[in-house]
Amino acid sequence: MAKIVIALGGNALGNTPAEQLALVTETARPIVDLIEAGHQVIVAHGNGPQVGMINLGLSTAAAAGAIKADMPFPECGAMSQGYIGYHLQNAINNELTARGLEKPVGTLVTQVLVDEADPAFQKPSKPVGAFYTKEEADKIAAEKGYTMVEDAGRGWRQVVASPRPVDVVEKEMVNTLVDAGYVVITVGGGGIPVVRREGRLVGVPAVIDKDYASARLAQLVGADTLVILTAVDRVAINWGKPDQQDLEMMTIAQAEQYCAEGQFAPGSMLPKVQAAMSFAATGGEAIIASLEKAAAALKGESGTRVVR
Amino acid sequence: MAKIVIALGGNALGNTPAEQLALVTETARPIVDLIEAGHQVIVAHGNGPQVGMINLGLSTAAAAGAIKADMPFPECGAMSQGYIGYHLQNAINNELTARGLEKPVGTLVTQVLVDEADPAFQKPSKPVGAFYTKEEADKIAAEKGYTMVEDAGRGWRQVVASPRPVDVVEKEMVNTLVDAGYVVITVGGGGIPVVRREGRLVGVPAVIDKDYASARLAQLVGADTLVILTAVDRVAINWGKPDQQDLEMMTIAQAEQYCAEGQFAPGSMLPKVQAAMSFAATGGEAIIASLEKAAAALKGESGTRVVR
Repeated sequence: MAKIVIALGGNALGNTPAEQLALVTETARPIVDLIEAGHQVIVAHGNGPQVGMINLGLSTAAAAGAIKADMPFPECGAMSQGYIGYHLQNAINNELTARGLEKPVGTLVTQVLVDEADPAFQKPSKPVGAFYTKEEADKIAAEKGYTMVEDAGRGWRQVVASPRPVDVVEKEMVNTLVDAGYVVITVGGGGIPVVRREGRLVGVPAVIDKDYASARLAQLVGADTLVILTAVDRVAINWGKPDQQDLEMMTIAQAEQYCAEGQFAPGSMLPKVQAAMSFAATGGEAIIASLEKAAAALKGESGTRVVR
Repeated sequence: MAKIVIALGGNALGNTPAEQLALVTETARPIVDLIEAGHQVIVAHGNGPQVGMINLGLSTAAAAGAIKADMPFPECGAMSQGYIGYHLQNAINNELTARGLEKPVGTLVTQVLVDEADPAFQKPSKPVGAFYTKEEADKIAAEKGYTMVEDAGRGWRQVVASPRPVDVVEKEMVNTLVDAGYVVITVGGGGIPVVRREGRLVGVPAVIDKDYASARLAQLVGADTLVILTAVDRVAINWGKPDQQDLEMMTIAQAEQYCAEGQFAPGSMLPKVQAAMSFAATGGEAIIASLEKAAAALKGESGTRVVR
């Protein structure tokens, strides 16, 4: 039996509530396979499409005067944790019940501490939410202090930073629940980003990479294994070329070499490999695998292991 | 030391994210007073204005084509739990830290089971979300199965049922966290309403009264005390009349009499009194008090106690 952090992609959750509700039913099965095998399971997940939809929808409604104010980015992240967490806990609960397993499952709204001195805050680069005219953008920047940039000729948008996770504020609660035998969904979307100012935690507009946040969480809760789920069964080098090679294992040194060679796509496989490397460096078992083969990957029959 | 469920009103949380963030800072102080006094505190809260804003905002954006689909009501409730829970746990955490108290605080996304045979589902009566023309309303009713009604000459709206809470799905997790010494925020907005169909939990469009949900939770987790917060220090009979009488205490029999006399406003003091009665009937201590005087109320110096 291992304590396992599973990192699910936000893109695997669909683009509408109906799609998501259908997809989480599928997602729940391989997760419950791991629970049924006796593992302690913590589920982390992305929220890219979902937090984008929430932010865009509410800012559009606010601009149209339908609601009083738009929603700052940390609050949109909190909403996405409730939205995705509810669907996941409901689906995992239902799958457990269908198999005759009695095991509570729930979602913790989770804040992740980042460092205000993180260089990412000097150049926010991730566009989020609605498109505006230059005039509107200037007004928003002046009123709210948002950083607004022109996005590929389509208009002006808010951009947010992507800092590294430093701490998971609610980590003790996660561990208490896991140790009590429960299934916990946490650090949704990489967590709600907060910084410490004069001793207080304050939400900041930012997106924390969910793979990095999952790796940090895995380390903080003393997980044995971090399983980062992706669309393919194994990490490959020379991807899409005649000499493509699927990897069963790579050392951190090898992985560094591959990263330096540009083998992995930024924003896709690269953060997954880097997150796996960071957890492997602390002595944990890090695996990148497909959702369908997660159980096989834990048995060493699929996935790519990153080892020291 | 007592195990206390506090039920906060959603109206006390403001109408915009900025208002809410300022108000939760105030709200956190009397809550932390109770924690500092050594009590185990569980915080429940309403979400009326917030879930209305989320539902209205996203349905407006969906109707305008800005996002792909509107958001069903249970999912809006889940979002409001993330949104309000994040602000509350952040503010309570900051207040605890400011007082030198180390105590984890977090929010559990919470489903509340209701009975599909509840008569409330036969006549949904609570209007939510955007206004539509009759044509649009007919289309939505046909496509989504929503109940749509004409609302006071202003247009057509979705109406949802207000069934009674039967069970809190995540109650064991709440209790584990509270027993471990943590502060837990749960059953936000009365909980995400789910029914059991063929063994599965399924979200349904409904609003569960947060005072009823809080009373049910208090009973399920074996709380000593339920504190229902309101805008006044004490429940009154003959309210606003020359012979107004503020009550320090009422028995369940007296409360029943007052309810029958129409002493308490439906949708306001009435559900609070009824929720307090239901918890008092199980042998618990039920108090209706103002937030500012919550600590005094626990010492018997303010508030209205409902006793068997």
